[in-house]
Amino acid sequence: MQEECACSHRTKHRTEEEKNRLIHRLNRMEGQIRGIRGMVENDLYCNDILIQCSAVNAALNAFERELLAAHIRTCVAEDLRAGKDEVVDELMGTIQKMMR
Amino acid sequence: MQEECACSHRTKHRTEEEKNRLIHRLNRMEGQIRGIRGMVENDLYCNDILIQCSAVNAALNAFERELLAAHIRTCVAEDLRAGKDEVVDELMGTIQKMMR
Amino acid sequence: MQEECACSHRTKHRTEEEKNRLIHRLNRMEGQIRGIRGMVENDLYCNDILIQCSAVNAALNAFERELLAAHIRTCVAEDLRAGKDEVVDELMGTIQKMMR
Amino acid sequence: MQEECACSHRTKHRTEEEKNRLIHRLNRMEGQIRGIRGMVENDLYCNDILIQCSAVNAALNAFERELLAAHIRTCVAEDLRAGKDEVVDELMGTIQKMMR
Repeated sequence: MQEECACSHRTKHRTEEEKNRLIHRLNRMEGQIRGIRGMVENDLYCNDILIQCSAVNAALNAFERELLAAHIRTCVAEDLRAGKDEVVDELMGTIQKMMR
Repeated sequence: MQEECACSHRTKHRTEEEKNRLIHRLNRMEGQIRGIRGMVENDLYCNDILIQCSAVNAALNAFERELLAAHIRTCVAEDLRAGKDEVVDELMGTIQKMMR
Repeated sequence: MQEECACSHRTKHRTEEEKNRLIHRLNRMEGQIRGIRGMVENDLYCNDILIQCSAVNAALNAFERELLAAHIRTCVAEDLRAGKDEVVDELMGTIQKMMR
Repeated sequence: MQEECACSHRTKHRTEEEKNRLIHRLNRMEGQIRGIRGMVENDLYCNDILIQCSAVNAALNAFERELLAAHIRTCVAEDLRAGKDEVVDELMGTIQKMMR
C-alpha cells in the first residue's frame, strides 16, 4: 500500500503516460505565457492580452483539476482507507486555495 | 489624444517602465511553471504541486489586474470621453472572463 | 451632470425598470436559499445541495455583472469625463473583490 | 455503515448541531440578500451594493466549504472504503462547478 502511494514521503509515483500528459500541459502554458510577453513587447491592445490571459487561466485550472482528481483517486483514497482522516484537512486547504 | 491611446488600431503605447514591470511578472510566471514541471518530473507530492499552482494563479491574477487598471485608466477613459460607449460592452466581456 | 449621477452623495438614481429587474433577481436568489434550507432540513444528499449552491453563485454573479455594467456606463463614465480619475481605484478594488 | 451514510438513497443524516450551523449560515445569507434589496430600493451607490454582494459570496463559499468537507469526510470516505471509486467523478464535477 505504502509503495503505491508514498504520500508520507512527500513523493508520488505517476505513470509515464500521466507524467507526459501533465508535462505537455505545462509546456503549452509556458508557450502561452511567452506569447503574452510578445504581445506586451509589441504594444498590443490591453483587451487582446487579457483574453489571452483567460486562456492561460483555463489551462492552469485544467491542469490543477487533472492533478486533483488523480490525487483524490490515489493518495486521498489510500489515506482514508488506512484511517488517516487528517488527509481531508489538507485536501480542504488545497481546494480552498483553488476556489480563491 | 488618439496618439496616446490608439485602441482603434488595436495597439497601445506603454511606457518602458510599465512594459518592464509587466514583462518581469511574465518571466517570473514562466519560472514558476518550469518549477512545477520539475516537480512533476521528480514525482513530488500532488498537494505540494497544487499549492505551487495557486502561486501561479495569484501571479496571473496580479498581472491581469495591473493590465486591466491601466486599460481602464487610458483606453476606456479615452473612449468614454469620446462618447464611444461600446467600450463598456467589450470591458464587461473581459471582466466576465476574468471572473469565470 | 451631478443630477444624473450623484455618486458623491453615495446615492444613484435607477429607472423603475432597472430597479425591478434587480429586485426580481434578488427575490429569486432569496427563494433559492430558502430551497437550500429545505434541503438541509430534509437531510438531502450533500452533492445535490452543492449543485444548488452553484446555481445561487451563478445568480449572484449575474446580478453583480448587471450592476457593474450599469455602474461603469453611468457613474464611472461620468467621473472620468469630469476628470475624477480616482474612480478607477475604487472600481479596481471592487473588481478585485469580485474576482477573488 | 450504510446507515451512517446512505448516499445511495440520496439522503444524508446530519447531527442536530451540524444542521443548525448550516441553517444559521443560510438565514444570515437570506438577511444579507434582503439588505441588498433595501439598498436597491433606496437608490444606494452601486459600489456599496457590490461590496455587500462580495460579503454574500464569501458567506456562500464558507457554506459550500463546510458542506464539502463534511461530504468528503463521510460520504466520499465511505464510498472509497467500499471501493465505489465512481464517487470521485461526482466529486470532481462538483469541485469544478465550485471553482468556476
